[in-house]
Amino acid sequence: MLTNGWFFEDDMPFAVAIKIKDSLYSGKSKYQKIEILDSVTMGKVMLLDDKVMISERDEFYYHESIVHPALSIHPNPEKIMIIGGGDGGTVREVLKYKTVEEIELVEIDEEVINVSKKYFPETASELNNPKLKIKLNDAIQYIKNAKESSYDVILCDSTDPEGFAAGLISKEFYKNVSKALKENGIYICQSGSLLIQEKEFKTSLENIRTAFKYVDGLVSIVPMYPGCVWSFLIASNKLLDKKIKHMPNGKTKYWNEEIHEKLFAKPQWLKEKYFALRKV
Amino acid sequence: MLTNGWFFEDDMPFAVAIKIKDSLYSGKSKYQKIEILDSVTMGKVMLLDDKVMISERDEFYYHESIVHPALSIHPNPEKIMIIGGGDGGTVREVLKYKTVEEIELVEIDEEVINVSKKYFPETASELNNPKLKIKLNDAIQYIKNAKESSYDVILCDSTDPEGFAAGLISKEFYKNVSKALKENGIYICQSGSLLIQEKEFKTSLENIRTAFKYVDGLVSIVPMYPGCVWSFLIASNKLLDKKIKHMPNGKTKYWNEEIHEKLFAKPQWLKEKYFALRKV
Repeated sequence: MLTNGWFFEDDMPFAVAIKIKDSLYSGKSKYQKIEILDSVTMGKVMLLDDKVMISERDEFYYHESIVHPALSIHPNPEKIMIIGGGDGGTVREVLKYKTVEEIELVEIDEEVINVSKKYFPETASELNNPKLKIKLNDAIQYIKNAKESSYDVILCDSTDPEGFAAGLISKEFYKNVSKALKENGIYICQSGSLLIQEKEFKTSLENIRTAFKYVDGLVSIVPMYPGCVWSFLIASNKLLDKKIKHMPNGKTKYWNEEIHEKLFAKPQWLKEKYFALRKV
Repeated sequence: MLTNGWFFEDDMPFAVAIKIKDSLYSGKSKYQKIEILDSVTMGKVMLLDDKVMISERDEFYYHESIVHPALSIHPNPEKIMIIGGGDGGTVREVLKYKTVEEIELVEIDEEVINVSKKYFPETASELNNPKLKIKLNDAIQYIKNAKESSYDVILCDSTDPEGFAAGLISKEFYKNVSKALKENGIYICQSGSLLIQEKEFKTSLENIRTAFKYVDGLVSIVPMYPGCVWSFLIASNKLLDKKIKHMPNGKTKYWNEEIHEKLFAKPQWLKEKYFALRKV
């Protein structure tokens, strides 16, 4: 909702409200409404179907939280798949690992890529990197047809599991991800707000546990997202050794060795409710 | 601002917006406007001068973040002072330590205490505890006249440093706090949003460093506060040994041993800008 110069997401009863200076772009792709707002304090903000995807000022919290916990603990991440992530922030962080040889970016909506290149050049800075192969596909179909045991890390940097993205938290999808990963492969995905999307978080967790031997949760912060306390799930069929194996080659703004450990610490209520006595 | 059934703080360009069901109370004390709203997802919410102080649903994040990092690492916390904190949440958490013999609650506004008892019985549950002495005073004056070397822990659970609370981040105030603490005493205070109150955070940090030998920062989450990534400062004249000496006697919802360590972990930008090469 845009009201009196403020924008906030009004589809849920809790949102972040930001003061807006200007509307820079408004369009409709084949899949969704795409808008770019200019805000007083968060820089430019991209909305997909009226939901905040990224802001210039805080996108690093999200992208560093989804990439570094997985890439830094994998012994040798070479072949990577990113689901969604058309803004390029996840690509930028993944490329900080020298071992990475190839990234497939499976983004359903080309318009998100085009708009990001134009309005978020810093976030989209690596979208022309030669190691990147952009696949304009529905990730749910793509992963079903993916070659078995061929990826080291798969990252799901998607919108909420609604509409065309609803299948991204199904048992079948997780099973296909599990098959596409190499033996010691790692999957990581954003799993929503712990404040207002606990139902979706619970479904994701229950379903992912049917497809992977080891599942753990991460708790991070994304100031622009509703509730701000943001969850991620990390999964593997090999015991998750959370020790950092190699550091990213390049500066980070949020993630560091201390924060790495912090991301795996859980509020007491969350630990008791979903992670007590669980193998992780 | 209350608009179309939503409330958000509109004095800064970034806020949390919550859907409101009802307005339960609106009054004016000698010091400030006090309002109680009933919200769809956060339960009852208390506003002081149009700023969110607590919500029923997330107050534990704040109160556990200000109390346990200090009380759990103090070897023997007996005499405690709380500045502000009229809602009672900090008192409730402090009383989980069996060593605590006496708490002085220095709250300027009696109305906050009365309204909390009525509308937030769970938060205010210990406001009649016999160990508690309520001092209806301006903390800035109170601390100036406090007996030297007499408190084990002082907690500043105040509103933002504006208006009557502006003096709570001055050099003189910190010097008086330092004097009122015993040799191994610990001071902890909330120091605002790292997203939109960095200027105040910087002032607090610079000033507190003039009064204490050791100062460290904590980073926690308070979903209802603007920017949600919330900072606290902890200070002592004795080296801060962050190892837990004793656990609270009673359940916590957020804090636990893992979270304890992680509260001291800092985003890379914050570490580089304010805590690099510093004795802490």
